[in-house]
Amino acid sequence: MDDVKFVLDENELPKKWYNVNADLPKPLDPPLHPMTLEPLGPEDLAPLFPMECIKQEMSPERYIDIPGEVRDVLRLWRPSPLYRARRLEKLLKTPAKIYYKWEGVSPPGSHKPNTAVAQAYYNMKEGIERISTETGAGQWGSSLAFATKLFELECMVYMVKCSYEQKPYRRIMMEAWGAKVVPSPSELTDAGKAILKKDSKCPGSLGIAISEAVNDAMAKENTHYSLGSVLNHVCIHQSVVGLEAKKQLEMAGEEKADIVVGCVGGGSNFAGLAFPYVHDKVNGADIDIVAVEPMACPTLTKGTYAYDYGDTAKMAPIVKMYTLGHDFVPEPIHAGGLRYHGDSPQLSLLVSEGVIRAEAYHQIECFDAAKMFAETEGFLVAPETSHAVKGAIEAALKCKESGEERVIVFNNSGHGHFDLAAYDAYHQGKLVDYEYPAELIKQSLKNLPDVGGN
Amino acid sequence: MDDVKFVLDENELPKKWYNVNADLPKPLDPPLHPMTLEPLGPEDLAPLFPMECIKQEMSPERYIDIPGEVRDVLRLWRPSPLYRARRLEKLLKTPAKIYYKWEGVSPPGSHKPNTAVAQAYYNMKEGIERISTETGAGQWGSSLAFATKLFELECMVYMVKCSYEQKPYRRIMMEAWGAKVVPSPSELTDAGKAILKKDSKCPGSLGIAISEAVNDAMAKENTHYSLGSVLNHVCIHQSVVGLEAKKQLEMAGEEKADIVVGCVGGGSNFAGLAFPYVHDKVNGADIDIVAVEPMACPTLTKGTYAYDYGDTAKMAPIVKMYTLGHDFVPEPIHAGGLRYHGDSPQLSLLVSEGVIRAEAYHQIECFDAAKMFAETEGFLVAPETSHAVKGAIEAALKCKESGEERVIVFNNSGHGHFDLAAYDAYHQGKLVDYEYPAELIKQSLKNLPDVGGN
Repeated sequence: MDDVKFVLDENELPKKWYNVNADLPKPLDPPLHPMTLEPLGPEDLAPLFPMECIKQEMSPERYIDIPGEVRDVLRLWRPSPLYRARRLEKLLKTPAKIYYKWEGVSPPGSHKPNTAVAQAYYNMKEGIERISTETGAGQWGSSLAFATKLFELECMVYMVKCSYEQKPYRRIMMEAWGAKVVPSPSELTDAGKAILKKDSKCPGSLGIAISEAVNDAMAKENTHYSLGSVLNHVCIHQSVVGLEAKKQLEMAGEEKADIVVGCVGGGSNFAGLAFPYVHDKVNGADIDIVAVEPMACPTLTKGTYAYDYGDTAKMAPIVKMYTLGHDFVPEPIHAGGLRYHGDSPQLSLLVSEGVIRAEAYHQIECFDAAKMFAETEGFLVAPETSHAVKGAIEAALKCKESGEERVIVFNNSGHGHFDLAAYDAYHQGKLVDYEYPAELIKQSLKNLPDVGGN
Repeated sequence: MDDVKFVLDENELPKKWYNVNADLPKPLDPPLHPMTLEPLGPEDLAPLFPMECIKQEMSPERYIDIPGEVRDVLRLWRPSPLYRARRLEKLLKTPAKIYYKWEGVSPPGSHKPNTAVAQAYYNMKEGIERISTETGAGQWGSSLAFATKLFELECMVYMVKCSYEQKPYRRIMMEAWGAKVVPSPSELTDAGKAILKKDSKCPGSLGIAISEAVNDAMAKENTHYSLGSVLNHVCIHQSVVGLEAKKQLEMAGEEKADIVVGCVGGGSNFAGLAFPYVHDKVNGADIDIVAVEPMACPTLTKGTYAYDYGDTAKMAPIVKMYTLGHDFVPEPIHAGGLRYHGDSPQLSLLVSEGVIRAEAYHQIECFDAAKMFAETEGFLVAPETSHAVKGAIEAALKCKESGEERVIVFNNSGHGHFDLAAYDAYHQGKLVDYEYPAELIKQSLKNLPDVGGN
């Protein structure tokens, strides 16, 4: 039995999501309103999100039912396969067993639709007819475009202008699923107009695009806003990844996972695989849970655990999290999805309590890992995902040193078909590693809000 | 039980390929040498192909063992899933059941690696160290690059120059798997140099690229040439698609397929799904087997069944096939992989004998079908594949008229992630339908070789 691929029938798609709120070693500090600095209530979020998502945000329940109509869409590609990377193990000459969950099989090509589908469904159920969102490189926007099309909602995507111009393929993909995509800043929102008035050639940023999408949702009838990471309901929806992986590791004959690895931007990619293992760990299992981030945006390894704004414009809630400061602007690494100054509050608490540990790597060594992966396992991964590959390879090499036959599993969260320009730069030796931005972080951490013991 | 996805364990990957030679209703006319016009022997092909492939080319055996090392690579993504397109059925309001085999899960994203892996393996076994090939848009080149990397062979790809310049992503993908890719015509071969001497700005063509790849294989030590379609060994390697589909339709509770649909360029995409059903049909099963081709290159519907050269340069063997004439140059439709003047000799014989029938469609109606598919089933298919989608939809609509609950299965052969510029043109209303090229065909059919009753 040298199986490399463990597949589940669609009937084995989980019927419940896992919610890490039930297993946190201590209570979360409450999120605060960005204007009043008072604790945030459901009513503050209601103009933006469906009530079911708001409930999940705060829910203490360990398991939450996945609606039948959501499972009905997820099964178009789920359960996703779990692979054993035998060819990679052989190349590394490691006694460790490396498994990976392959999320690139979804139509948009990443883990993102796991939550996009649920969010589109809940909005549809509440009678919402239109959803606005922002996107950078387009992974999130294309996932929401796909999900809203299947539930017959309109989708409005504010795409960071420089990405809109440089990366037309993701934009076209969104349009193929019927979304309206505009370069941000745009003339369609007050937020966009104000910025264009100051600088008509502004290349845009994720912060500006968020402001426009929120602005749009507030201003238009029957419109909600949707976010692709950070929030707890997003992490909950991603838990299908880890729940499936557990069943599949059992199929593979493994008693447990010893090392669980994922990459971290806002946290939901990582949470998808790792949070269901947090449940085991807080109940006594010996598991090393490793969050991998880019050295150019080292939130968990070099940031501070404190209250901070979720966005640069100070419009998003203030939450207790690891942060580099809401003013921090990371260098333009190719893993655009990992360039966030903060992190999921749940993930941050778990790192602060020592349940999860973090590592940071430079982008060139991550591309080295991705290249090694492509040459053995075949799949070309996204630059974000290359951080998880790097983390898994490092763990496997440590097992080689120690001679331990440990079970490693990582979240292979998406393909790199729209990131080939980054691979080209890598092949041509044009990629650069940015120095660890110590001074910048020091400066931006000076601007944390003056609340809750900061 | 409303399942949409039928997955097989990797242990159910077929152990034998199917060879349609065993079920042809009459013998094939022999291939002829392009210079001597005499029947071709194995020794004529030996400088280009491994002996095992040459044997398969002529083999009368119905089933041929798949080597363990080939299965070992194929299982990285095989068996591929069979889907029931319930959402598409619902939209069409058809009583027909539409199933599709999804080949986009392979690392290069199409069915092409099914044969690339086998060819790389046989070459490796014969001590060949390097394989040359040509590629247009890059589907075939990237599949061979992937396969050769896993068997540690060098890969040399001559990529049609205008594609090399316009479509860098496939080129980068090939390089990620370690292939050397050069724009053709190049200065690396005598064939390329001769053309550049006449026209230094020549944009290249598939015919020229083939000449360069063959030239390279003949000139260099330990180098073979590899072809991605048309030949019988290629069609044999693709038969895993249909063999798996049969098992999966059984899982789905279907007694048999009633209508089998695929798109046709050189024929191997179509053969992969359809040839295993030819076996059933010649043994009495009532199956409508439909080959779909572009109206701009209507080989099976408007060509002649006659001896013709396999290539424009008259270097390839002369075979009995449906042809538009080796001089025929189709309009630049986006389905580049379907722009071949001829077709597989086996497929041609089966069409001529009425076992398989052919349909032709314009590209805009094929993109309409692909768009409908993306909006219901989620997957964005390649322009080539959109022809199979169109064929399946047409069949389903006929079932709607007649009220018949027939079982349709088509080969969804690859994703369109590198074809989004074509989708963009479609969205913007810039796609054109080329008129049926009656006069051009009439002219090019005048130049058939004067052999075997032509």
